[in-house]
Amino acid sequence: MENSKDISMAVVRRLPRYYRYLEDMLARGVTRASSAELSRSMNATASQIRQDLSNFGSFGQQGYGYNVEMLRDEIKKILGLDKEYRLILIGAGALGQALVRYEKFEKKGFRFTGLFDNDPNRIGTFIRDIEVWDVQRLQSFLSGNPVDIAVFTLPRDGAEKALDIVTGAGVKGIWNFSYRDLRISGGTKVESVHLTDSLMTLSYMLSEGNK
Amino acid sequence: MENSKDISMAVVRRLPRYYRYLEDMLARGVTRASSAELSRSMNATASQIRQDLSNFGSFGQQGYGYNVEMLRDEIKKILGLDKEYRLILIGAGALGQALVRYEKFEKKGFRFTGLFDNDPNRIGTFIRDIEVWDVQRLQSFLSGNPVDIAVFTLPRDGAEKALDIVTGAGVKGIWNFSYRDLRISGGTKVESVHLTDSLMTLSYMLSEGNK
Repeated sequence: MENSKDISMAVVRRLPRYYRYLEDMLARGVTRASSAELSRSMNATASQIRQDLSNFGSFGQQGYGYNVEMLRDEIKKILGLDKEYRLILIGAGALGQALVRYEKFEKKGFRFTGLFDNDPNRIGTFIRDIEVWDVQRLQSFLSGNPVDIAVFTLPRDGAEKALDIVTGAGVKGIWNFSYRDLRISGGTKVESVHLTDSLMTLSYMLSEGNK
Repeated sequence: MENSKDISMAVVRRLPRYYRYLEDMLARGVTRASSAELSRSMNATASQIRQDLSNFGSFGQQGYGYNVEMLRDEIKKILGLDKEYRLILIGAGALGQALVRYEKFEKKGFRFTGLFDNDPNRIGTFIRDIEVWDVQRLQSFLSGNPVDIAVFTLPRDGAEKALDIVTGAGVKGIWNFSYRDLRISGGTKVESVHLTDSLMTLSYMLSEGNK
């Protein structure tokens, strides 16, 4: 994977979908597939799949096709899913609670180890078996507990301050649901999910359809 | 907006961000901005902003810059945010509840009018002031109540059947959070939010950083 730094984010963003479909195929007992079969399952063109996968080495064999399990394992490794990640949640409102309760994340190796909020009504409550702590304790928590990913589900006004604390403590990944785009310097990686933007994109598509 | 069908989805997906920033600027009392100023606020290059906005007509004036309010209003119209949308939720679990409780959607014109689930523990409960109905009643609800967008927050196994019902009833937009990619024919528009894919993309970025 020496060249993997050159892979475009457009390709990277398709990999989780490939991974999901390969898991599906394995669950159905499919062990081997041609790129045409992958294409039908994945709803992508065979040439795009071949091209995307060729970024990561050579998985297909002429006349045999792809070994589904090997391909799944390789993509798993590329996506960093062969490791475990410790997550904290900052903002334990309805969305934050939903994320902590979503069991699929844990199965993929993403485990919440700390939850923080500034609302006295939430501090001291439990989500699953984890207690919500006062966000004032965030810094001291981070000094004693290594964290890989901080999940931001807090209102925009708190996001900047929380960002300073977590990046200052060396947290390398931010999964950002706050309305604000976070500006990061240094080696921190941010992946944002802007739900409102997504809904607006849908209203654009609906509105286009009516013209 | 005669040509707007030719606008690439890459541009469309940047518009909600522009819209957010323009709203911010108006809230701060900024009424007029050069593309260099927009660029600083929006964290995008001035030339990309100019190029994106030129798809929709000519908003900037040489020597004056952009009228922030006019630009905001135009993007609002392009995004279809000058209309109201009636939403139903299919799957009233933790994530679905969080979406119904998220007040920003309603402020933007997206209003939940029906909630459905198949879990007896959820049927009959209320989220905000809306009762969760048995999903068995979905079809009859749709025959009496026009719906613009169905939000799918249900497990993958229920998604296909729900899809048949809502598309059969003429619902034109699907906001899909289910793990499955939905295959649509006809005029239905689907916008998917795959949270697990997003988290995997972040783990890719973190894992790359450590190599």
